[in-house]
Amino acid sequence: MLPFEILEYQERLRKTKELMTKKGIDVLLITDPANMNYLSGYDAWSFYVHQMLVVMIDEAQPLWIGRYLDAKGAVVKTWMFDENVIAYPDFYVHSEDNHPMDFIASVFNQRGLGSKSFGVEMDHYYFTAKAFEQLRRNLPNASFKNADLLVNSVRMIKSDQEIEYMRRAAMIAEQAMYKGVDSVRAGGRECDTAAMIYYHLLTGTTEHGGDYPAIVPFLPTGQNTSIPHLTWTDKQFSEGEAVIIELAGCYQRYHVPLARTVSIGKPLDKLQNLAPIAVEGINDVLTAVKPGMTCGEVESVWRNSIKKYGIEKESRLGYSVGLNYPPDWGEHTASIRKGDTTILKPNMTFHLIPGLWFDTYGIEISETFRVTEKGCETFTNYPRELLINTPFRLDQQGGIIS
Amino acid sequence: MLPFEILEYQERLRKTKELMTKKGIDVLLITDPANMNYLSGYDAWSFYVHQMLVVMIDEAQPLWIGRYLDAKGAVVKTWMFDENVIAYPDFYVHSEDNHPMDFIASVFNQRGLGSKSFGVEMDHYYFTAKAFEQLRRNLPNASFKNADLLVNSVRMIKSDQEIEYMRRAAMIAEQAMYKGVDSVRAGGRECDTAAMIYYHLLTGTTEHGGDYPAIVPFLPTGQNTSIPHLTWTDKQFSEGEAVIIELAGCYQRYHVPLARTVSIGKPLDKLQNLAPIAVEGINDVLTAVKPGMTCGEVESVWRNSIKKYGIEKESRLGYSVGLNYPPDWGEHTASIRKGDTTILKPNMTFHLIPGLWFDTYGIEISETFRVTEKGCETFTNYPRELLINTPFRLDQQGGIIS
Repeated sequence: MLPFEILEYQERLRKTKELMTKKGIDVLLITDPANMNYLSGYDAWSFYVHQMLVVMIDEAQPLWIGRYLDAKGAVVKTWMFDENVIAYPDFYVHSEDNHPMDFIASVFNQRGLGSKSFGVEMDHYYFTAKAFEQLRRNLPNASFKNADLLVNSVRMIKSDQEIEYMRRAAMIAEQAMYKGVDSVRAGGRECDTAAMIYYHLLTGTTEHGGDYPAIVPFLPTGQNTSIPHLTWTDKQFSEGEAVIIELAGCYQRYHVPLARTVSIGKPLDKLQNLAPIAVEGINDVLTAVKPGMTCGEVESVWRNSIKKYGIEKESRLGYSVGLNYPPDWGEHTASIRKGDTTILKPNMTFHLIPGLWFDTYGIEISETFRVTEKGCETFTNYPRELLINTPFRLDQQGGIIS
Repeated sequence: MLPFEILEYQERLRKTKELMTKKGIDVLLITDPANMNYLSGYDAWSFYVHQMLVVMIDEAQPLWIGRYLDAKGAVVKTWMFDENVIAYPDFYVHSEDNHPMDFIASVFNQRGLGSKSFGVEMDHYYFTAKAFEQLRRNLPNASFKNADLLVNSVRMIKSDQEIEYMRRAAMIAEQAMYKGVDSVRAGGRECDTAAMIYYHLLTGTTEHGGDYPAIVPFLPTGQNTSIPHLTWTDKQFSEGEAVIIELAGCYQRYHVPLARTVSIGKPLDKLQNLAPIAVEGINDVLTAVKPGMTCGEVESVWRNSIKKYGIEKESRLGYSVGLNYPPDWGEHTASIRKGDTTILKPNMTFHLIPGLWFDTYGIEISETFRVTEKGCETFTNYPRELLINTPFRLDQQGGIIS
C-alpha cells in the first residue's frame, strides 16, 4: 500500500536526523504535510486541523499526533507501528477553550521530553502563531529552534522512484494541457476549460490515476494575462484574446507543473513578438543547466538572453518542485534567481517558469526539468511556443461547431 | 465586476470596526483569505505567500499589502482606491534573508502606526509563528491582541446576496453528486469518479460556472469508509463495497457541502441497519432547528435521537459554512456540538454532517441548511438515504456496459 519501500522512508529519516544533530535539535516537530508524508507516508486532507509528525533523535520511529477522527488514517497510511499514532479528542477541534497544542505538549511532558531542544517549522502555513505560543506556554523548560525547510532540504534530491512518479505526473500534465488548450475557443467559458483540465488531471492515464494538484489551474485571460495568480470565472472567451494555462499533473502527491499561452485566433503583435524571446531564453537556460552550477548562475543565463532584446524581469524564474500539498507545489528551498547559491545536483527538479508580465498582457511558457549527470532533461514534451487556436472549433468539413 | 455592491463591503467593514472598538484594536491585520475577500473583494490564489488586509479604525478603506506580482490583482479585484494597494518586491518571497513581515512592519512604522494596538489572527493557517515573530521584532512599541475569528464572527449571518450565491452553489453540488454517484460502479476507478465530480463542480450550470471548492472531494471506499478524510486512489471499485462521497458546490467562493453514501449492489447488513438511524437523526434535527436555540441544544436533539438505538458519537455534528479558501470550507466559529452556546439566528448557514464511523465501515449523509425566521431549510434536495447502485452500468436492454 505504501508508495515507497520502508527502507526509503528510513533513509529519509536518517538524513533528517543528521541535520537535527548538526543543528542541536532533539525533537523535531513537523507540521508541513509534505514533510509528514515524506517521512511517514501519511496522506489525507486532514491538515486543516492541527497535527504533526514528531521525530526524536534517539527513537527509531516518529510519532504521528493528530485528531481522533484521522488517527486510523495514520495507522493505515504510515509505515510506523500502531502504538506510534496518538490522537487528541474532538473537543480540541476549532475550539476557543481547548487547543490541540495543549494536548500535544502534555504528551511531551509525559514522555519526559519537557526540557528538550525542539525544532519547529516557524514559517510553515500549518504552524500558526497560536500553535507556537501554546507549545511554549506548556513547555516552559524546553528550548525552541527554527527548523524551517530542514526536511524540505532533504527532499530536494529525488530518488529514482520519486522521479518515476514525476514522470507519471508529467504524462498527466501533458494530457490535461492538450485537452485544456483545445477547449479554449471563442464562446467557450473559462469554467468549462477549468473543468476539462481538472477532469484529465484526475482521471489520469489508463495505468495511473491522477491526484489533486496543490494549486488549482490558473487561467488568466485577456488583459488579466498580466496578473499571474487569478483563477477562472464563468466569462466567455473572445476571439483575439490570449489565455494563460498554468497547471500541474500530480501522481502520489508529486507534481510536474506546465504553463503555456494560447491565442484565440491571431495574436496581438506585441505577444507574437515576445514569444520567441521567452522561448529563446528557456532554450538557453536548458542548454546551460548542469550539475555544479548555482541557481543564481542559471538565472544569469536567462537575464543575458533577454537583455539582448531590452527586457528585464524582476521576479524569480523558478523553484524546486516535487511532493506537495495545498496551498503550494513549490518546495520553498532553492529559487532560480539572482544571488541563490544552491548548487545543482543530479535528480534535483525545478519548475522553470520565466513569466513575463506587462501592463495589459503577459506570457507564460514553462518547463519542469530534472538535473541529470551531465545537464538536464524536461519531464514533458509539449510544443514550446505561443500556441494559436482557430477561434472556433471546426468540424471535418470546416464548419463551425457550436 | 465585484460580486457584491460596494455598500455591502462597507457595511461588513463597519461591523468589523465595531468589534475592533470593543476589543480595543486600532489596526486589524487580516491574513485569512476568506476574511480578506469578505472585506475587500480580493480573490486570487496568492495566499501561498504572505499578504494581508489592514483595517485601521479611523480610515475609510483598508490597505492590501502583498507580493508585487499580485498587486495588480488587488487593484482589479477590490473596491478600494489603487493607492491602498501596497506591494513588496519579489526578493521577499520564500527567502531565508528577507521576510515579508519586515517590509510590512516598515510600512506601519512609516505611517506612524508603530505604537498602535494591533489585532492578529493568531490561529489562522496563513499567519505563521515566524510572521508574528518578525512583526513583534520590527514593531517593538506595538501591542498585539488575538483577533482570531473576529471577522469570521461577522461572516456568520449571511446577506440575501450571499444566500443567493449559496443557492447557486447548491445546484452545482447536487449535479456533481448525481454524476459522481452514477459513476460509482464495480470496475470503475476512484480517480474516474473524482474526475467526474470535479468536472461538474467546475463547469457548473448553463447560467453559473462553478468555482474550486476549499477541500477536494472525499471518496473513502470499502473499509476506508471508517476514515473520513482520505481522498481517492486509482483502485477499482468492487461489487458490495460502499463509497462515501463528500463534496461541496462552490460559487463566488461560497460553499454548499453535501455528503452521501452509496453501496455498489447489496449493502452490508450493518450499513443498511445504520442508515435509517442516521436519516432519522438528521430529520429530527432539521425539524427542531429554529432561531433562538443554541448549537449545543441542536446537538442534544441528535444525541437523543440516536441514543434510542444505543449509538453515541464523539465528534461534532457540523459547523458554520460559507465563504472560504483552502484548506477548509468551515468557518471555524460555531460548531454543532455539546456545550456550544452560539445562538442560532436567521441566515446563519451550517453543514450538518453527523458522520458515523465504526471499525470497518461508516456512513455520511449530510445537509447544508439555512436558519430561517421560523425554522430552517436545506439548500439541496437530494434523496436523503443510503443510495444503492446496480453494481454495473446497464444499457437500455439490460446488458452490462463497462
